[in-house]
Amino acid sequence: MLSTMQDVPLLISRILTHGSTIHGSSQVTTWTGEGDPHRRSYAEIGARAAQLAHALRDDLGIRADDRVGTLMWNNAEHVEAYFAIPSMGAVLHTLNLRLPAEQLAWIVNHAADRVVIANGSLLPLLAPLLPHLRTVEHVVVCGPGDRSLLADASARVHEYEDLIAAKPVAYDWPELDERRAAAMCYTSGTTGDPKGVVYSHRSVYLHSMQVNMAQSMGLTDQDTSLVVVPQFHVNAWGLPHATFMTGVNLLMPDRFLQPAPLAEMIERERPTHAAAVPTIWQGLLAELTVRPRDVGALTQVTIGGSACPRSLMEAFDKLGMRVCHAWGMTETSPLGTIARPPAHVTDAEEEFGYRLTQGRFPAGVEARLTGPGGERLPWDGASAGELEVRGPWIAGAYYNGPDVQPLRPADKFSEDGWLKTGDVGTISPDGYLTLTDRAKDVIKSGGEWISSVDLENALMSHPDVAEAAVVAVPDDRWGERPLATVVLKEGASADFETLRAFLAEEGNIAKWQLPERWTVIAAVPKTSVGKFDKKKLRGLHKSGALEVTTLAPQVRRGAESPAAD
Amino acid sequence: MLSTMQDVPLLISRILTHGSTIHGSSQVTTWTGEGDPHRRSYAEIGARAAQLAHALRDDLGIRADDRVGTLMWNNAEHVEAYFAIPSMGAVLHTLNLRLPAEQLAWIVNHAADRVVIANGSLLPLLAPLLPHLRTVEHVVVCGPGDRSLLADASARVHEYEDLIAAKPVAYDWPELDERRAAAMCYTSGTTGDPKGVVYSHRSVYLHSMQVNMAQSMGLTDQDTSLVVVPQFHVNAWGLPHATFMTGVNLLMPDRFLQPAPLAEMIERERPTHAAAVPTIWQGLLAELTVRPRDVGALTQVTIGGSACPRSLMEAFDKLGMRVCHAWGMTETSPLGTIARPPAHVTDAEEEFGYRLTQGRFPAGVEARLTGPGGERLPWDGASAGELEVRGPWIAGAYYNGPDVQPLRPADKFSEDGWLKTGDVGTISPDGYLTLTDRAKDVIKSGGEWISSVDLENALMSHPDVAEAAVVAVPDDRWGERPLATVVLKEGASADFETLRAFLAEEGNIAKWQLPERWTVIAAVPKTSVGKFDKKKLRGLHKSGALEVTTLAPQVRRGAESPAAD
Repeated sequence: MLSTMQDVPLLISRILTHGSTIHGSSQVTTWTGEGDPHRRSYAEIGARAAQLAHALRDDLGIRADDRVGTLMWNNAEHVEAYFAIPSMGAVLHTLNLRLPAEQLAWIVNHAADRVVIANGSLLPLLAPLLPHLRTVEHVVVCGPGDRSLLADASARVHEYEDLIAAKPVAYDWPELDERRAAAMCYTSGTTGDPKGVVYSHRSVYLHSMQVNMAQSMGLTDQDTSLVVVPQFHVNAWGLPHATFMTGVNLLMPDRFLQPAPLAEMIERERPTHAAAVPTIWQGLLAELTVRPRDVGALTQVTIGGSACPRSLMEAFDKLGMRVCHAWGMTETSPLGTIARPPAHVTDAEEEFGYRLTQGRFPAGVEARLTGPGGERLPWDGASAGELEVRGPWIAGAYYNGPDVQPLRPADKFSEDGWLKTGDVGTISPDGYLTLTDRAKDVIKSGGEWISSVDLENALMSHPDVAEAAVVAVPDDRWGERPLATVVLKEGASADFETLRAFLAEEGNIAKWQLPERWTVIAAVPKTSVGKFDKKKLRGLHKSGALEVTTLAPQVRRGAESPAAD
Repeated sequence: MLSTMQDVPLLISRILTHGSTIHGSSQVTTWTGEGDPHRRSYAEIGARAAQLAHALRDDLGIRADDRVGTLMWNNAEHVEAYFAIPSMGAVLHTLNLRLPAEQLAWIVNHAADRVVIANGSLLPLLAPLLPHLRTVEHVVVCGPGDRSLLADASARVHEYEDLIAAKPVAYDWPELDERRAAAMCYTSGTTGDPKGVVYSHRSVYLHSMQVNMAQSMGLTDQDTSLVVVPQFHVNAWGLPHATFMTGVNLLMPDRFLQPAPLAEMIERERPTHAAAVPTIWQGLLAELTVRPRDVGALTQVTIGGSACPRSLMEAFDKLGMRVCHAWGMTETSPLGTIARPPAHVTDAEEEFGYRLTQGRFPAGVEARLTGPGGERLPWDGASAGELEVRGPWIAGAYYNGPDVQPLRPADKFSEDGWLKTGDVGTISPDGYLTLTDRAKDVIKSGGEWISSVDLENALMSHPDVAEAAVVAVPDDRWGERPLATVVLKEGASADFETLRAFLAEEGNIAKWQLPERWTVIAAVPKTSVGKFDKKKLRGLHKSGALEVTTLAPQVRRGAESPAAD
């Protein structure tokens, strides 16, 4: 039996129209690094987004489904592009300016972007790339920067402001199927080619509602949000869309992401909320320690991207900025969990424990844990498995071209359509997620999992150890066993037996999880974003470049599985 | 171009599963009128909803799309029915126990309910009705009440607890099309037969997300909501569904809706939020004045259904219970506006002005005003027109049977599918709605509208006037003109010329709006819910039963329209 309700699609154009009328006086403030920041009302953003859509359609020939790339910082023009491009039926493709040039070129070519809108300050990055971008016909430049860098470009070059200046300030946004593509973002996986996630109007709309729920970020037009997390990074965690639903004022740092200007923004513009990865906050904390500022307005800080250290959370608490942990990934739009403690908690230490988890799943995100053998694990706070999630703002495939069936690699999506996150962790009975490892780094030993991260943390708490990385290596009997690679502090002399005993006694590591294989290295190899490069370590081991000492096993030889001991 | 996102339908079963797992320890507390209230956790509600679904399917033969009626107060069992029935694919039909018996029978027969779940306390209402309910095969009774009243029933009678007792506590909820019918509710219009609105899983899900947005009710699991607005009245404003998304505790008054038990509930159970119509709050205020209670926990009160008088809002403010006005109707799920003042307001009086409006449209509700000639009117806070709304939780038709095209009467739905609300008002440039009249009561004079409510309020402020109702009567020249019907206070003697002059001078009524036709009546006829019965007044006039005095017109005879003067 059908309902009698109206069939109104959930479209990004509706978010724009709502924000630019009902909340027309809310503001997007962009930091300029000198003098007053630049301010633009939501009503103006709405008018200029319409102008941009006219220009893209009439002057640059953009049609439905065409991809338009943005190589931009967080600023008002990027917000305009966020709304104009999907609302007109085209697809916004945000480009991660931190990627290696060749990966960036690969991504633009794979998405077949016809236009790239770029900030002038990023032309030194774009100009040498352009000859390799096979599909880009137009470059639209906005904001300060040396245009002469594009003198030799074969693509046509336009000034953003000139392009939109004479265009009508209203656009008859098309009624689209809400499942149509709205925006895309590539993950920069360390293995294989980058994978494109294509968000729909529906997924963006629903994700925005979720972000605005009181139990989530829950901002209103009384708030100003400092969006440090880049707009090229999973839609800036959905904030530009969510804020246009409720009139939250946006404070955009543009390219001024250093601790000093961030501290100045917070003091001068008094945001009530901010969102960024832990590294940014570490820098800000150091800055505030050296040069204290009035940060009194900023009471809510959302941290995601990687786990927030306890010390950082405590330091921020002392400054009155309450940290709220969140977890997500490109494939989850990204909001997958948010760490608001449950109502029944009154004990401060217990509350802190909840805040250090990745958080609780909101309505709309279903979760399950899968063990090494594919079995479902209970939500008991102890059983560790790979996290799989399902929901209307979660990817079920990767982009494979506009008219081609999307890719569903079996290591990324289950047969029944759930996303395999590649994250390993536990879920408590009340739905709080604690991540312990990446699935690819976990050691699968005799049908059980050993957490590389647990071993590393235990090792690094030994006074003689500077750094330690643990990777899986093949083992005839158990499938895989851990290899401990250790960087000793200068002058330190701990031997492997001592370290292994320390793991068992001080680190609380079960006997069957203790590594037999050990090696000393000069430094742990790192990825471009500073994470341990375990792929490289495994490669070094495979090639025989590491000199491995093998201790007598602590695992009982007759056991069916190492855990039996 | 399609997105790569998962295609997960928005289903009520997902809200239930989320609430009963992630928020399993949240509670539904039902007042019993004696001793301790009854408490049931969300986890228990989830288990019992599964049991109820099994019973409905296996014992009572309920299949997809079958309608199951509920004749119940607000209590835990009604919440179970709210989730079990739609989740299994059937349609929940809440029955308004305040309707006249014959209307109730008409509605049950029109919906063809196969089962009615009834509270024992409502059997005195149900028993005499049953012989007239042609489609009801089963009655399921729960809670205290005299079962012997059903001794002669031809329908089979079941005890709720017996029925569900032995059933499995999990149910494999079907994956449904989110546009399928989930619940239905009939409007009790004063003209014609009641009209059925059929909510979809999608509309309920989206409405719930909206209710949970911080700018809307914005509750979390830190809150307890006292839901006085009946579950048979537009899904209790969507609260039972919304709360299961966020773990808000529910406090349900069952049949104890009198001021004294409500005051006791508030003092003992300390809800942080409450929702009800103004009449309830007037009663509670009187009770609290006579017998003060500790109501300190209750800080947010949502008022809808009809406009909240300023005096009531001020009195509640003084008690620390901040009133938030909302507007909606059965056709809007119901949340259509909510009166949170905009961020820029600092002046207390200005803020109060915003709080007295019906409120601002949330994202998801689009609005427009249509003038007497069908023209679109501006959002200028002055132009009054009929409010039309569009959105995914707004009705686009009325129920006409399970396999029949729904009804789209032209006076209720525009050609392009918007709902004509029948409410007349203005919208400010920042999107705040102020309702002034019902469209059917407004006087259409020479292509302009005259507000009957404005004239009535002005008349009733005259010291000699006890009551006054103004209705439209036919006029050869202007189409319609106002007829003022006045009830004079005992011993009062004001004549019509005096009253008309008072309207112009003290009431600020424009000359062309001043009535020529006047009559004195003994009392204004009222509807069953105490509103002025203007239909009856118009009938009395038409039949010649009123003795009308016609004053010389103040409108210039040569004018094109009365407003020209």
